[in-house]
Amino acid sequence: MHRFFIPKNSLIDDTITISGDTARQIIKVLRLKVGENITILDNSGWEYQTTITSIHNDMVLGKVVGKTSGKGEPRIQITLCQALLKTDKFELVLQKGVELGVVRFVPFFSERCVAKMPSANKIERWQEIIKEAAEQSRRSLLPQLAQVIPFEEACEQAPMPSLILWEEEKTRGLRQVLKSKPFMESSEITIFVGPEGGFTLTEIEFARDQGIITLGLGKRILRAETAGLAVISAIMYEKGELGIIDGVG
Amino acid sequence: MHRFFIPKNSLIDDTITISGDTARQIIKVLRLKVGENITILDNSGWEYQTTITSIHNDMVLGKVVGKTSGKGEPRIQITLCQALLKTDKFELVLQKGVELGVVRFVPFFSERCVAKMPSANKIERWQEIIKEAAEQSRRSLLPQLAQVIPFEEACEQAPMPSLILWEEEKTRGLRQVLKSKPFMESSEITIFVGPEGGFTLTEIEFARDQGIITLGLGKRILRAETAGLAVISAIMYEKGELGIIDGVG
Repeated sequence: MHRFFIPKNSLIDDTITISGDTARQIIKVLRLKVGENITILDNSGWEYQTTITSIHNDMVLGKVVGKTSGKGEPRIQITLCQALLKTDKFELVLQKGVELGVVRFVPFFSERCVAKMPSANKIERWQEIIKEAAEQSRRSLLPQLAQVIPFEEACEQAPMPSLILWEEEKTRGLRQVLKSKPFMESSEITIFVGPEGGFTLTEIEFARDQGIITLGLGKRILRAETAGLAVISAIMYEKGELGIIDGVG
Repeated sequence: MHRFFIPKNSLIDDTITISGDTARQIIKVLRLKVGENITILDNSGWEYQTTITSIHNDMVLGKVVGKTSGKGEPRIQITLCQALLKTDKFELVLQKGVELGVVRFVPFFSERCVAKMPSANKIERWQEIIKEAAEQSRRSLLPQLAQVIPFEEACEQAPMPSLILWEEEKTRGLRQVLKSKPFMESSEITIFVGPEGGFTLTEIEFARDQGIITLGLGKRILRAETAGLAVISAIMYEKGELGIIDGVG
């Protein structure tokens, strides 16, 4: 069933009012009709099974016929602090990160970033990519997109435990870190991934001073947009979130 | 140092002759000069440290000054049998698969494939994507690209143990499979990933009849181009290949 995130105030009692892009998608792209069922998400964690009751111009009305608790959220809360990348790479990270279960994205700029600061339009587009990926991958909550901040600020704000990927780290690998007590016991993990040119030594030292753990990914060099996704996949696997419905697999 | 795969017959004694696209890349794109060093790979597993000795028109000559055993190959040999996908998605799978360590790609077509059969030009482009990703990610051997075959043939040919990703598999997850004896003991794994619309039940049954194990990836729905990469990341992690240089991490 098609899934749509809507603003919270679009749901009043059991009536849902959908306008804007989502309504256009329902009417023009998917060509859904009165009587068809959709799933509505208001970012509360609930999922509302909804029947379309009327379509007027650019507006869709629906009636909630059922309500279930969403099952699309991982138990492990991953924050991905990602350096700005060239547009298509950054968008890839957002889309795939949402599918894999990231709950929060913190874009940052650092010394070797070549990507420009995003315009307001660009940020709106990123929000849209996150929303569409969340709908498609059956997330129950909309992952957050934080404001773009300097690397140092992202380090200072990062919830612990926190990891930073660094190709010069030759002694500490992912398994060792994920099997360590702080990571085994924590229900949240923060990951820092640099720009195409990597981090400077000064940046790595700054991160370490904040208690962020440096991590190598081995002998094959992953591109900036691949590294985070590989680590997120591995964490989800380690935490039993890349498996069967009950999360055991 | 820049890395280039060249045909085996381009190396005679300690002299390397580079022509074609690779020469153009050295001369026009990277603008390397006589006296600069590059790493040459002839797909034998050796890496040749090479000094550029002359540049004539579209040809580069080099002299081998050192030879080391390549370290870019994983101990686990992953074959990715991937259904044809829309062009940009399929190319993403090839590029990221090479970075993550896939040794062989087998493209197949199945009932729900909407992507067209690739032209000769397209296949040449795929080879180029694989080569560039292998150079960039520091692989020591060039991953293979098999011919496009029907799904059933890919199943029949697949080395065991072999996995097929299926969103309707609700009881068997990745951890359970990777911790099972055949997968723990094997140095190769085959993974089947379907097209955008997934596999038909008939296809799944056919695969099962060949001994291929169905596998679910849990409550979040991954796109076709994401699913394989997530599983490969998890396998590399489980096998200690997403870690430090010696593979322990």
